[in-house]
Amino acid sequence: MKKIILIACLALLTSACSNESTSTAPKNIIMVVADGTGPSYTTAYRYYNDDPTTDEIEETVFDRHLVGIASTYPARESGYITDSAAAATALAAGVKSYNGAIGVDVDKKPVETVLEYAKLIGKKTGVVVTSQINHATPASYLAHNESRKNYDAIANSYIDDGIKADVYLGGGWQYFIRDDRNIVEEFKQAGFHYVDNYDQLADIPEQPLFGLFDKVGLPWALDDTKHNRLSVMTEAATGLLENDKGFFMLVEASQVDWAGHSNDIAAAMGEMTDLAITMEYLEQYVKDHPDTLVVMTADHSTGGLTVAANGKYEWNPEYLRTMTQSPSAITKILLDSDINKTLVEELLHFTITDEELVFLQQAKVKKSSDKKIYKVVKAIIDQRTNTGWTTGGHTGHDVQVFAMGAGSEMFRGKIDNTDIAKKIFTFLGK
Amino acid sequence: MKKIILIACLALLTSACSNESTSTAPKNIIMVVADGTGPSYTTAYRYYNDDPTTDEIEETVFDRHLVGIASTYPARESGYITDSAAAATALAAGVKSYNGAIGVDVDKKPVETVLEYAKLIGKKTGVVVTSQINHATPASYLAHNESRKNYDAIANSYIDDGIKADVYLGGGWQYFIRDDRNIVEEFKQAGFHYVDNYDQLADIPEQPLFGLFDKVGLPWALDDTKHNRLSVMTEAATGLLENDKGFFMLVEASQVDWAGHSNDIAAAMGEMTDLAITMEYLEQYVKDHPDTLVVMTADHSTGGLTVAANGKYEWNPEYLRTMTQSPSAITKILLDSDINKTLVEELLHFTITDEELVFLQQAKVKKSSDKKIYKVVKAIIDQRTNTGWTTGGHTGHDVQVFAMGAGSEMFRGKIDNTDIAKKIFTFLGK
Repeated sequence: MKKIILIACLALLTSACSNESTSTAPKNIIMVVADGTGPSYTTAYRYYNDDPTTDEIEETVFDRHLVGIASTYPARESGYITDSAAAATALAAGVKSYNGAIGVDVDKKPVETVLEYAKLIGKKTGVVVTSQINHATPASYLAHNESRKNYDAIANSYIDDGIKADVYLGGGWQYFIRDDRNIVEEFKQAGFHYVDNYDQLADIPEQPLFGLFDKVGLPWALDDTKHNRLSVMTEAATGLLENDKGFFMLVEASQVDWAGHSNDIAAAMGEMTDLAITMEYLEQYVKDHPDTLVVMTADHSTGGLTVAANGKYEWNPEYLRTMTQSPSAITKILLDSDINKTLVEELLHFTITDEELVFLQQAKVKKSSDKKIYKVVKAIIDQRTNTGWTTGGHTGHDVQVFAMGAGSEMFRGKIDNTDIAKKIFTFLGK
Repeated sequence: MKKIILIACLALLTSACSNESTSTAPKNIIMVVADGTGPSYTTAYRYYNDDPTTDEIEETVFDRHLVGIASTYPARESGYITDSAAAATALAAGVKSYNGAIGVDVDKKPVETVLEYAKLIGKKTGVVVTSQINHATPASYLAHNESRKNYDAIANSYIDDGIKADVYLGGGWQYFIRDDRNIVEEFKQAGFHYVDNYDQLADIPEQPLFGLFDKVGLPWALDDTKHNRLSVMTEAATGLLENDKGFFMLVEASQVDWAGHSNDIAAAMGEMTDLAITMEYLEQYVKDHPDTLVVMTADHSTGGLTVAANGKYEWNPEYLRTMTQSPSAITKILLDSDINKTLVEELLHFTITDEELVFLQQAKVKKSSDKKIYKVVKAIIDQRTNTGWTTGGHTGHDVQVFAMGAGSEMFRGKIDNTDIAKKIFTFLGK
């Protein structure tokens, strides 16, 4: 008998420690996509978040839950560098597709997503994003369209193809309240509560819920009425989605990517802070609900961000820690004001040189002065922090995978972005 | 009794699956430092190594053994961006120090290294590098000096402080065969075999062995008589170091970093290929010797390399796959030749534009024409491949950790570079 028990224990041991093991399936699955957030963003955030008055570098929530990396390349026909649509289709459906594809394969045929399958088997579902809710990432979980650019068609499909989620939170009035069609009204008629202000979230007693908080994407975290709007929405959504059969929720920190496209390190650190607060909330949620799995990854990296540049062995996040509004918001103020040193230094919270002041003043009298001023403001910040960028687009770098809770050990090591959907499908019993 | 066995099994299970567990200590430990090889280099190598005629992207040896990432920041006084000396001191001794420090702490006091401790407890030890053997990384395992720049003093200490390794392979005639001192002769008098040609390695029957194959660092992998010189040296060293008590060996792919400093993607992929072949050899070695641990990491990332740049969603490694010599070697030929289109295209294996030809011809008549031509050759390759760089120095990005063999599960997740030395010390029983 002893021998049998020992053999059973050994089998258990082998199984528990192997990547191939079948863990207990989590009841709730929360997929966090940090759009554009390649490895250099979490490194930058660690040093941005560091308290320089202590001896140690403070550990971040990302440090605590890293389990591996994922490759992100799209289908062969799109080369090695993915866009957000192909990457989200890979994450949602486990299928490599072409850049631009929303929940369809290389033959433009719909592919079932983990959100759709979760709904099918009776779980509640939700999407919480800081972009418009019909942007590439959420759309790839909720819709099937040959092009991410068909925003209105994707919005229409949220009703026309059957309602697939119980909670929708993000931006998008422009696409959902149109002259030709009011999709918000249609959701209300289908029994959804509707909110358009973060403060209303606390008063919603139950799902279904449809919440749109801005015309397109939400404001930058640094500028929004709630800097931690992603965590506020996520907290509301988890509360509403809890039920006996469990839930699948997509959470997207959509705008790290947008900051990367703009090569805007100050906005990026604002978005990373909101993402970190969201992950800290989910860390506690998993402690309280150990039958929940949280997986976080990026769809790709954006901007070619590098932490240090120009031959100098330094990165100086102290100039970012004191930012109280985004470079875009600062640009708007400068556009409407007499640009002088006192004003600029009040806005940036650090001193500027006479030369930098002249650059700003010259930018104002040029054509497209808003873009020109924005460019100079970012250049000043890059120069102070010693931040580097190589592109306004994406790079092909592998991205990190973070996981916590039930089944998190299944995501260890180097995987492919399609493996994430495949593992979630396995947990859902498909 | 059943209950006791079950509890024992559960304890075993908990211990085996925890990062804090004490695994069976490996008999042999091989530490591979891929200098400067941040995450973008292994991504780039995967796509460079891809066979475009197959459907899939071929998996690399790095993909098979990734276990986590490590932070690399130096001691607080040096900011967030490390140099190779502080990083190697962290990896060798488990201690954060200032940039430039060779095996000393922030007070410039010597700190014991894993190589020294392995020697002390009776293991054989070795260093195999493609830089000079007294360069920052090997020196941090073998010596204690307040500055990496003291090359002669570090070389002297390899004898004067007691001989610490049984096998030394790399470059460095300039420092070891000097007018004032012939350290090679001193090693020979101490009983070492000496070789200065890779082919001689096959004939050495036993350690100790001292092998120097070039004046300073070895030639680029692309240009060396053996493109896979790191794997040739590593294979020779493991054979010589095998013994009943086991061994500790440092292997450094030193020149990925140098390619990064030069922003030379072609040379970098040549070095990555040699590193990959070395890791494939070690993968087989671990299969044949399961009591061996191999850990690979980078000390930091160099050059701010990005896989794609300039707003374009493409990276085109096909221009690199056909390179038969390095851009430096091509530069030397162009310096000594009449620069015409036929010659340049013969050297690069792709067509160039008339404008590019003019740039090369103009570079030749300028001052420092070698540097100017090298710059234009690299710019042409970067433009074709769509490769980005932000610095001639280092960046602060977390680096990947790869591990295989006995105890490899101890390196999972996010760790700090100092943790690598600490875990190795634990394995050594300290």
